[in-house]
Amino acid sequence: MAIKNAFYAQSGGVTAVINASACGVIQTARKHPDKIGKVFAGRNGILGALNEELIDTSLETDEAIQALIHTPGGAFGSCRYKLKNISENRREYERLIEVFRAHDIGYFFYNGGGDSQDTAYKVSQMGETMGYPITCIGVPKTVDNDLPFTDCCPGFGSVAKYIATSTQEASLDIKSMCETSTKVFVLEVMGRHAGWIAASGGLAGEGEGEPPHIILFPEIPFNRDAFLERVEFCVKEYGYCVVVASEGAQYEDGRFLADAGATDAFGHTQLGGVAPALANMVRQALGYKYHWAVADYLQRSARHIASATDVEQAYTVGKAAVEMALDGKQALMPTIVREQAKPYRWKIGEAPLSEVANQEKKMPIHYISDDGFGITKDCRDYLQPLIAGESFPPFENGIPKVAKLSNTLAEKKLKTDFHI
Amino acid sequence: MAIKNAFYAQSGGVTAVINASACGVIQTARKHPDKIGKVFAGRNGILGALNEELIDTSLETDEAIQALIHTPGGAFGSCRYKLKNISENRREYERLIEVFRAHDIGYFFYNGGGDSQDTAYKVSQMGETMGYPITCIGVPKTVDNDLPFTDCCPGFGSVAKYIATSTQEASLDIKSMCETSTKVFVLEVMGRHAGWIAASGGLAGEGEGEPPHIILFPEIPFNRDAFLERVEFCVKEYGYCVVVASEGAQYEDGRFLADAGATDAFGHTQLGGVAPALANMVRQALGYKYHWAVADYLQRSARHIASATDVEQAYTVGKAAVEMALDGKQALMPTIVREQAKPYRWKIGEAPLSEVANQEKKMPIHYISDDGFGITKDCRDYLQPLIAGESFPPFENGIPKVAKLSNTLAEKKLKTDFHI
Repeated sequence: MAIKNAFYAQSGGVTAVINASACGVIQTARKHPDKIGKVFAGRNGILGALNEELIDTSLETDEAIQALIHTPGGAFGSCRYKLKNISENRREYERLIEVFRAHDIGYFFYNGGGDSQDTAYKVSQMGETMGYPITCIGVPKTVDNDLPFTDCCPGFGSVAKYIATSTQEASLDIKSMCETSTKVFVLEVMGRHAGWIAASGGLAGEGEGEPPHIILFPEIPFNRDAFLERVEFCVKEYGYCVVVASEGAQYEDGRFLADAGATDAFGHTQLGGVAPALANMVRQALGYKYHWAVADYLQRSARHIASATDVEQAYTVGKAAVEMALDGKQALMPTIVREQAKPYRWKIGEAPLSEVANQEKKMPIHYISDDGFGITKDCRDYLQPLIAGESFPPFENGIPKVAKLSNTLAEKKLKTDFHI
Repeated sequence: MAIKNAFYAQSGGVTAVINASACGVIQTARKHPDKIGKVFAGRNGILGALNEELIDTSLETDEAIQALIHTPGGAFGSCRYKLKNISENRREYERLIEVFRAHDIGYFFYNGGGDSQDTAYKVSQMGETMGYPITCIGVPKTVDNDLPFTDCCPGFGSVAKYIATSTQEASLDIKSMCETSTKVFVLEVMGRHAGWIAASGGLAGEGEGEPPHIILFPEIPFNRDAFLERVEFCVKEYGYCVVVASEGAQYEDGRFLADAGATDAFGHTQLGGVAPALANMVRQALGYKYHWAVADYLQRSARHIASATDVEQAYTVGKAAVEMALDGKQALMPTIVREQAKPYRWKIGEAPLSEVANQEKKMPIHYISDDGFGITKDCRDYLQPLIAGESFPPFENGIPKVAKLSNTLAEKKLKTDFHI
C-alpha cells in the first residue's frame, strides 16, 4: 500500500470538543507514517479543498496538536457549505479530484453532522463514478445529538453538562430571590428539531418541585394555556418557576415560537428569541417578574465545563476513523455503542454513510413525561453518563489556555483558482 | 462582655460567592462561642428579621456550612427590600428591635451592595435614636463592582472570569465559522450603570484584531454610526466581530438601548434585550449574519468557573466582619485594599457605612480606550488579578455538588406577625 496524504475537515456548527476529534485523527495518523503521509486540514471545511487552501498540520508541534484536546471552536475553520449531487454539479467534484490528486490525497475524513456525512458520502462515490478512488470516513459531531445509529454524538455531552450545570446554578439564584423579586426564569437552549439539549436541563434536579419545572421540547406542540397554567402552579406551589426552552419549540401548526426569519446555507430557519417571547407571555398573562437568558454559542463552546466522557468519545471517534481507513473500510462513520448503562460502558461501532446522511434522530416519546414538560427516568438514565466527569482545561491569566496553531497553508500546486 | 446572638442576612442580587461570605461569617462566629451564641440567618434577607423568620444556623453541620463555600445563590434567601428612614417608618425599626430583643441579638451582619449597606447603616443608628444598641457591620457583595472605598467587590471577580472565559470560547466558535456563516456575535452582560463586567470581556484577548472587538460601556454614550462603522471594519479586516455589550449601554440622552419598561423594588429600571437590539441594528444596516447571547443570571451564579481570588476575598470579608464586630467596631464595612498589583497582594481595610451607602463607583475614564470601544492597559492591570485562580466545586452525577441546608426556623417568640 502506497503512502497517501489525508484530508481532514471540520464542517457545520463547531463544538467544545470537535478539536478533540481533530486531535484523535492527527495523532493517530502520525502513528502510521508508513501509510499516511501528511494530514492536510481544509481551511474552512470542504471549502479548503475546493479553494486549494490546505493547512499542513505536519508543521504543527506535538504540543500544539495535543492542546487541541482542550480548545473549543474549529481550529482549522468550519463552513456551512453543502455539496450538490454529482449529477447536479460535476464541476465541484472535478475540482476536488484535481486538488486531491495534486496533493496526493487518498484519505478523506469529514467531521460534522448529518449534512456533513452527506458530503462525505458524495465524496466516497467519486471513486466509482469519476475514477478517483478515495477512502472516505465520516467523523460524527453535533451538539444536537440527532445523528442516527450512534448512541450519542460527540459535542452533545458537553453542551448537556453546560446546560444542566447552568440550569442548576441559575435556579439556586432564582430560588434565593423569588420572595420579593424574579419568579420566573427562562433559559433558551439550542436544538433545532430535537429536544436533546433541552432535555439535559432536566438533569439539574429530580425531586418534586426541583427545577427545572418546565422543559419545552420541539417534539411537543406548544400549548400556551397549559404552559401558563403550569407556570402559575409552580410559582404558587414552589415560589418560583424555571423554564428550559428549546429554540425549536413550536406550535401545533409548526410555527416556531420565535422565528427570526433568516435561513442559513442549508435552508434551515435561523432561530432565536424563544426566551423573551415566553417571558413576555408570562408577564402579560400572569404579571410575574421574570428574567431570561439565551445561551446561544456559549453553550456549544463551553470547553471549560466539558464532559470528560464527551471529550474521550470525541477523541476516540477521530482515532477510530483513521483506524477504519487503514483497515481498508470505506464510506462509514464510527459510532458510539452503549454496552452498559450502569456503570457506563461503551465501544466504537460503525454505520454506513449512505444511511447516516440526512436523517434526524428525535427524542423517543417515552423520554418525555406524560404532561410534556419533563423527562422520564429512561431519559435520565440515557443522559446521565454522557455528562459524567470533568475535563477542565489548563488556565493561564485566569482564562483557559488554548492551542496556538500556525495554520500554515501548503503551497498551491494548481494554476487555477476555483470560484464557487 | 455578655454572649449575644448574631443576625446575618443576604440582600439584593445574589452571586456565585455570597455563600462563601456566609461561610466566613458563620465559621468565624463558631470559633468565638464565648462572645457569639447562635448565628441566625434572616430568611430572605431583612424580611426574615421583620417576619421573625430566623434560620437557626447552629442546627447545620460543619460540613454543610463548609459546603456553602462552593454553592452559588443565596442559601438563606435574599430580598430586594429597602428600609425607609427611621423618621419615615419608625414602625419597621420598632419591629426589628422587638425581634432582635426576643432573640437576644447583639450583632447585625448585612451582606449586600450599596442599597444594603444603606440598610445596615440605618440599623446601626437604632442604638442612638431608639435605645437598642446593636453592633452593625456590612459585608460587601455586588457583581456590579460599584461599591466605593473597596478595591473590588466580592462577586465581581467570578462574573468577570465567567465573562472573559465565555467571550474567549464563543469568539473561537465565531472565528471558525465566519467565512460562510455568523460574522457578528453580541454578548449582553450585566452592569446597570457601571461597565466593570463589560470591561472584563476585554480580558479574553489583547493583541491587534483579537476579540472582543467592541465593548459597549454604560459610561460611554452609544453612537450608532461609530458602532456600525467599527463592526464593518472588523468584519472586513478580521473576518468577524465580537461585541460585549453592557445591559446599561445608553444613548447620549440617557435612553437605554433596550428598556424593558419594568422597575424593581428599588426603583431601578429592569433592563434586558440590548443584544437583540444591536444584532438587529447590524442586520438592517450591514446585512451580516449574526448571533447573540444574553448571559443574564447564568453569569452571576456560575460558581463552576468562579475566581479563586474572588472566593477567598468573599470568605475573608465575612470573617473580617465578625472579627471587626468582636473588636467592638461599629457601622463599618470591611474593604479589599490592593497592596500590590504584580504579584497581586491585598489586605482587609474598613470603610464607614455612612459613606459607603448609596454611592456608585463608575469605571475611571482612563480605563476605557480613546475610541470608547475597549479597555486600556491600566484597566487590564486592575482586572487581571481579580479573575486569577480556579476554584472548581466538587461534582456529583456530572453537575456541581451544592450545600444541603435544613434551614430550620427558630421558634417564634413574638405573638404578633408583622405586615409589611
